[in-house]
Amino acid sequence: MGLDAGRLARYRSLRREAARPGLINLNPIQRGGILPPEAREVLREFGDGYSICDFCLKGRMDAIRRPPVADFLDDLASFLDMDVVRLTNRCRDAVFIALMALRRSRGGRSLIVDSNSHYSTYLAAEAAGLEVLEVPNTGHPEYKVVIGAYEGLIEEAEEGGRPPVAVLLTHVDPYYGNLNDPRPLAKICREHGLPLILNAAYTAGVMPVRGRELGVDILVSSGHKSWASSGPVGILAMSSEVADEVLVRSSSFPDKELYLLGCPVLGVALATLMASFPHVVERVARWPDEVRRARWLVGQLERIEGIRQLGTRPKEHTLICLETPGLHEVARRHKRRGFFLYEELKARGIVGIQPGLTRRIKLSTYGLTDEEVQRVAEAFRDIAAKYGLPVS
Amino acid sequence: MGLDAGRLARYRSLRREAARPGLINLNPIQRGGILPPEAREVLREFGDGYSICDFCLKGRMDAIRRPPVADFLDDLASFLDMDVVRLTNRCRDAVFIALMALRRSRGGRSLIVDSNSHYSTYLAAEAAGLEVLEVPNTGHPEYKVVIGAYEGLIEEAEEGGRPPVAVLLTHVDPYYGNLNDPRPLAKICREHGLPLILNAAYTAGVMPVRGRELGVDILVSSGHKSWASSGPVGILAMSSEVADEVLVRSSSFPDKELYLLGCPVLGVALATLMASFPHVVERVARWPDEVRRARWLVGQLERIEGIRQLGTRPKEHTLICLETPGLHEVARRHKRRGFFLYEELKARGIVGIQPGLTRRIKLSTYGLTDEEVQRVAEAFRDIAAKYGLPVS
Repeated sequence: MGLDAGRLARYRSLRREAARPGLINLNPIQRGGILPPEAREVLREFGDGYSICDFCLKGRMDAIRRPPVADFLDDLASFLDMDVVRLTNRCRDAVFIALMALRRSRGGRSLIVDSNSHYSTYLAAEAAGLEVLEVPNTGHPEYKVVIGAYEGLIEEAEEGGRPPVAVLLTHVDPYYGNLNDPRPLAKICREHGLPLILNAAYTAGVMPVRGRELGVDILVSSGHKSWASSGPVGILAMSSEVADEVLVRSSSFPDKELYLLGCPVLGVALATLMASFPHVVERVARWPDEVRRARWLVGQLERIEGIRQLGTRPKEHTLICLETPGLHEVARRHKRRGFFLYEELKARGIVGIQPGLTRRIKLSTYGLTDEEVQRVAEAFRDIAAKYGLPVS
Repeated sequence: MGLDAGRLARYRSLRREAARPGLINLNPIQRGGILPPEAREVLREFGDGYSICDFCLKGRMDAIRRPPVADFLDDLASFLDMDVVRLTNRCRDAVFIALMALRRSRGGRSLIVDSNSHYSTYLAAEAAGLEVLEVPNTGHPEYKVVIGAYEGLIEEAEEGGRPPVAVLLTHVDPYYGNLNDPRPLAKICREHGLPLILNAAYTAGVMPVRGRELGVDILVSSGHKSWASSGPVGILAMSSEVADEVLVRSSSFPDKELYLLGCPVLGVALATLMASFPHVVERVARWPDEVRRARWLVGQLERIEGIRQLGTRPKEHTLICLETPGLHEVARRHKRRGFFLYEELKARGIVGIQPGLTRRIKLSTYGLTDEEVQRVAEAFRDIAAKYGLPVS
């Protein structure tokens, strides 16, 4: 087969550098996906491929009673203040499934999105055969989504022969960590008879999110991003009206939900999502503390000359984007170029800043202790002092 | 939120009965997905959601070098004797992605499949907007796919305004464990300019499968079913010509592969697939022993009156379907009805037969030792004796 024995041996002993105890990982996609001890406990128990399916009697994952998957999905719906929950393989698959089904039942041609949407929203729409119409943001430095522009764009699309199948809002975006209130938009969507999809990949599971109160019809989230699950697993939560439309059955296998292609999730992805759920229920109540720590860190970092927070102020989320021309200037002179920052932080026990980037950096303080956030602030101050950046 | 504390506590301490040491699990969907020790080792290391992405520099999972994902995908392609491999969330997603892309590039209207196809093949085709045209099988007791009927059906579809986008063959089907040789069909597909998709969910990863030698253009498989991975993870292996067609890029994010919706797999699903790969490479070489054990067990079980193997004879795969009218007769008189067999087997340390079924049962001997297969035969003989079924 031409397989090299040395390469094969490497696969057998994979190790993860960033998992060493004591390291602080600031990667925004990772902070909400770190397993609590009780989820780590189920990894070995449910490690085998189809471990969840031992007592599947109906050929439907959402109907399994041992372990209590059916109860769990009910509880998850209640926690999110929605009627029906299905699991998908990723948050983006939840969006795609909803779009495929809505397009089939409604026959529209476009999806209206905010311009801070995740790239996968654009892919899901394109793969579903829909044109993407974008609501602008205010640009540098706030990049605030202009919620007021949705209505005009919906009308323009409707009148211009490109009727939307749905409207999507990114609850907290992945670039600046700006929080959007869906309620004013929900009112507009209701008036136009359009379902509102809330992408809660960065919010549900880390902060309190109650879909019905927010007026959304479909709420999608990411288990590996924000629910302390190994994943990959997405959450597709719906009102019952929209669920009837989205969870259409296969014509040849009427027990199976067509666009889910049957049961999407199993094994450790689901077992860790379930095991972490009590932890998630507790942690969302501590959200005000999380925001306080994020704001504190921004205050500390902005004392370094050439570091400024982008996005709306003050922070309402733990995902922080910083414009860092001071650090970029250092990188230009440094023999390691852009990698100097990553390496200097790593030498101080901090990882998760994208290696090579210094013009803008992103990080998240989610789940860090006061002491850990202080260590991060000190590390940046220390690096600033080493390279002669003034600190006030 | 109305969440019950007792229910929450249950999620925190999930346990898996069927994972107890010493139990023999005969479930055909599970035998190929049991992790070897080296894969169990990486579960904790890579348990966190985005653990694979620590050193992602290009925003493409297939380009990650630490851990060596890019090398692994090359080795996987070489092992399968195909040109290009991508991972998907499930085998069925690999089929769906291929169909969506082929339909877009070729504009066909149908998919030709064998009538022993997995239900998810029908769902993937329907979700992709394709009509399913079915090649028959010979019916009871062999249920052998009539490979010779493909050509006529292809021509009928082409002439009847329902041009196929592709042809699909299930390498070993999930109902009878019949093995189909794709080579004669590959020749017909080439003549008609149609890509041949081989569903190798029950073959690649457990027995030797070399796609190019078999003449297939697309080979799909299931990591949690047959590659000793926690999953969910699917394998989409292609010839380079078809890969160019299937791996179309997004118009708005040209680095991203459209129908994959970006990176599909991460965390333990991928880490266990990689860690198990050397084990998989070794085990496929032991396939003749696996078939020998399956045949031996069939011989033993057929000595019980009212048990007969369905599907082609002799077995060429470890998935065994048995017609069991003798056991069904016992169930009719038993106070536990159809559950008696499950319970009698479990009392003898054997699980994995679908609880409640006695008319037909399915099991797999894959990966069992000689001694374990003997224990299975003895358990059935013992149950036959207890309920007065003659054994020759």
